[in-house]
Amino acid sequence: MENFNFYSPTEFVFGKGRENEVGELVRKYGGSKVLVHFGGGSAVRSGLLDRVKASLEKSGVSYCELGGVQPNPRDTLVYKGIELARNEGVDMLLAVGGGSVIDSSKAIAAGVLYDGDFWDLYSGTPITKALPVGTVLTIAAAGSEGSPNTVITKEEGMIKRGSGSDLLRPKFSVLDPELTQTLPAYQTACGATDIMAHVFERYFTNTPEVEITDRLCEAVLLTMVKETPRVIKDPDNYDARANIMWAGMVAHNNICGVGRAQDWNSHGLEHELSGLYDVAHGAGLAVIMPAWMEYVCTHDIERFCMMATRVFGVDMNFKDPESTAREGIRRFRQFLKGIGMPINFAELGAKAEDIPTLIEKLGIGNGKRAGFVELDRKDVENIYNIAVNAKL
Amino acid sequence: MENFNFYSPTEFVFGKGRENEVGELVRKYGGSKVLVHFGGGSAVRSGLLDRVKASLEKSGVSYCELGGVQPNPRDTLVYKGIELARNEGVDMLLAVGGGSVIDSSKAIAAGVLYDGDFWDLYSGTPITKALPVGTVLTIAAAGSEGSPNTVITKEEGMIKRGSGSDLLRPKFSVLDPELTQTLPAYQTACGATDIMAHVFERYFTNTPEVEITDRLCEAVLLTMVKETPRVIKDPDNYDARANIMWAGMVAHNNICGVGRAQDWNSHGLEHELSGLYDVAHGAGLAVIMPAWMEYVCTHDIERFCMMATRVFGVDMNFKDPESTAREGIRRFRQFLKGIGMPINFAELGAKAEDIPTLIEKLGIGNGKRAGFVELDRKDVENIYNIAVNAKL
Repeated sequence: MENFNFYSPTEFVFGKGRENEVGELVRKYGGSKVLVHFGGGSAVRSGLLDRVKASLEKSGVSYCELGGVQPNPRDTLVYKGIELARNEGVDMLLAVGGGSVIDSSKAIAAGVLYDGDFWDLYSGTPITKALPVGTVLTIAAAGSEGSPNTVITKEEGMIKRGSGSDLLRPKFSVLDPELTQTLPAYQTACGATDIMAHVFERYFTNTPEVEITDRLCEAVLLTMVKETPRVIKDPDNYDARANIMWAGMVAHNNICGVGRAQDWNSHGLEHELSGLYDVAHGAGLAVIMPAWMEYVCTHDIERFCMMATRVFGVDMNFKDPESTAREGIRRFRQFLKGIGMPINFAELGAKAEDIPTLIEKLGIGNGKRAGFVELDRKDVENIYNIAVNAKL
Repeated sequence: MENFNFYSPTEFVFGKGRENEVGELVRKYGGSKVLVHFGGGSAVRSGLLDRVKASLEKSGVSYCELGGVQPNPRDTLVYKGIELARNEGVDMLLAVGGGSVIDSSKAIAAGVLYDGDFWDLYSGTPITKALPVGTVLTIAAAGSEGSPNTVITKEEGMIKRGSGSDLLRPKFSVLDPELTQTLPAYQTACGATDIMAHVFERYFTNTPEVEITDRLCEAVLLTMVKETPRVIKDPDNYDARANIMWAGMVAHNNICGVGRAQDWNSHGLEHELSGLYDVAHGAGLAVIMPAWMEYVCTHDIERFCMMATRVFGVDMNFKDPESTAREGIRRFRQFLKGIGMPINFAELGAKAEDIPTLIEKLGIGNGKRAGFVELDRKDVENIYNIAVNAKL
C-alpha cells in the first residue's frame, strides 16, 4: 500500500426533505449572502428552487441567483458568475443541481478570489483561495458533492479541462434521493455509469496489496449492479434511489482510491467525446470504458477475473482465466446496454472519421498517457476503434 | 433507508514515517502549545515519542507531557490532564497511542473548557466546547482516531461510560502501520476483534434496503478475515498491517453505519466485563459477540445467512437456512480462536458467579435495552450464560 492523505470534511445531510435545512446549513458554515447557482428549468418546475429560497429566507440569508448551467458547464457562465458574485459581495456559493452546477459553482468560488482569468486555474495554476461551497444535489452521478474536483468546458473550441483543490470540497451537501425520482431513465442510467466508472478508474491499479480499497470498490459496484436496474424499472423506488445516491458520493470522495495508483484514462478519452459532440459524460463512458477494458485486460488478467467473479458473478475458469476476464467485461457491457446506455460510436452519435480529431484534441503528441497501462497515440486510436464497432 | 448526517472531517495522514509530519499538522490546525498524552513505556522505548517531540520542536510548537494512560482509561488521569492543560495554557491535545490514549485526550479536550466536573459530560450533559485533538495512532482497534466517541472508566467502582460529540473528531490522525509491527500478537488480535465488532454492531439492523452500507460493512469484514491471520503469522507484514489499520478507521467513522438503526448491545455487555476484570476490550468482545449472535440469530436468519455466505464463505443451505446462519457464527468463533482470542468466560478470566453483578452494573433494572433485538434482564443473563460455556 502506498502512503496517502484522506480528507473528506464535507457534512453530508442525507434523506427526504433535507433541502429544507439549507438555510441553517449556510448559517452554520458562515454564509450570509449566497449565490444560488442552478441549471435549466427542472429545479424551477419541481419547486425545489422555491423551497431552497424559502429556507434561506427563514434563516435570514440573503441571496442572488444565476441559472442556465448546461451539461458540460461552460467557462462563459463562470465569468458571469464571478462578476455577479463580486458585485453582490457574495460569501458562499450554493449549487442546486447536478455535477455540472456544482462544478460551475466551484469554478466561481475559486475565480472570485483569483486576480486573473479563472481559466488559469484550469491550466496549471494552483487554487490557493476559494469561497465556501454548499450543494443541494439533484442527480447521482458526478460525485462532485463530495469531491475536490471540477471540470469546465471552454466554449471556444469546446476544450474540457479539470482542476481541483481540497478548498473546493463542499462544506455541506444535501442529498435528498426524492429529488432524483423525476429524472428521465436515460439521465439516471448516465449517472449510474459515471458512478461505476469513478470506481473502475480506481479499481484498476498496479499497486498490490490494497485489499481494503479493493473491497470498498467492489461494495459500491455490487450496489450499483443491484440497484440501477431497479430504478430504471421503477423510478419511484426511494430505497434504490437512496442507495445509488450515497454510492455516488462514496465512489468519488476517494475512499475507494486511497493507497494506490489510479488510472483515469477512460475519463480522459471520454472527455474528448463529450467535448466534441456535447453528449452526456456517462453515455460516453459507457462506450469508452468497456473498450478500454478489452484493450488492456491482458495486462492483469487476475484483476479482471476479480472484477468478473466478485462483481458480475462470473464462474472462474481456472484453465482459461482470460475467458473469465473477458466474460466479466462482456457482462459489464450487457449491464450498460440493459440500463439503456449506448455501447458504440453509432449509438452515441459519434463518428469513426473523427477519431484523428479526438486524438488531436487529447494533446497526446508523441508522448504517453500514464495509467494502469501507458497509452500512446496508437493505443488510443485502437481503443477508440474498439468503441466504434463494439457490440454484445 | 433512514435519513442521516455523515460528517468525518478528520485529515488522515497515512503511511510510513508520517509521524514526522506531526509538527506541521499541529500548526496547520492552529495549535501552538500541545499536551502530548501517551500511555506506558512502548511509545518511549520505541523512540516514537522522541520523533514526535523532534517534529514539534522543528515546527516551533511548544508542549507539555502526560503519560501513564492505562487500558480502560481512568477518570483520575483525566482530572490530572485537565489541570495540567489549564496550568500550561494548552490549545491542542496530541494523543500518541491507541484508543485509550485518544479517548483520554478527548476527555481532557472537553473537560478543559467545561466549568464543572468533566464526568458530567459522561453522564448526560452534552459537550458544547472542546479543544482540538490530533492523534498519532499506535494500534488498529478502537477507531477513536476517526470517531466522535470516547469511553472513560471511573476508578471508583470501575464504572465505564461513553460520550461523544463531533467536536471530538480529531482534526488530524497520523496512521503509520509500521508503528503497529511491534505489538504482541494478543494485542493485535484484540484490536482486530474490536474492529470487526464495530462493523457487526452496525451490520445487524432492522432497517431494510440499505445495500450500500451492508456492502461496505462486508468489505471491511472480508478484509479483516483475510489480513488478520496474516499479521498473526507474520507480524512484520507491512501491507497486511496497513490494510487492518485503515479498516479500523473505516469500521468506526460511521461510513459503515449510516442510514440504519444500529445495535451496540455486545459492546454494552462487554463493557461490564472489561470494567469488572480489567481485561482487554477486544478479548471481552470475542467472548460476548458470538454468544449474542447465537442468542439473537433466529430474529433474522436471512441477515445471518448473508454474513455466513458473504463474509465467511459458507455454502447456503436453502432447505435449512438456520444451519447456514449458525455455521457462520461458528466460523466467526473459529476465526477468533484461530487468532488467539478467548471464546468463553474461563479463557477470559471471568466467572459465572459474577453474572448477577455484571447485570447489576449494566443498570438494566426491569427495562429493556434497545437494539437489533430488545434485551431484558433475562436475555442478558442468557447471553452471558452462553458465553460462559462457549466452545467450538
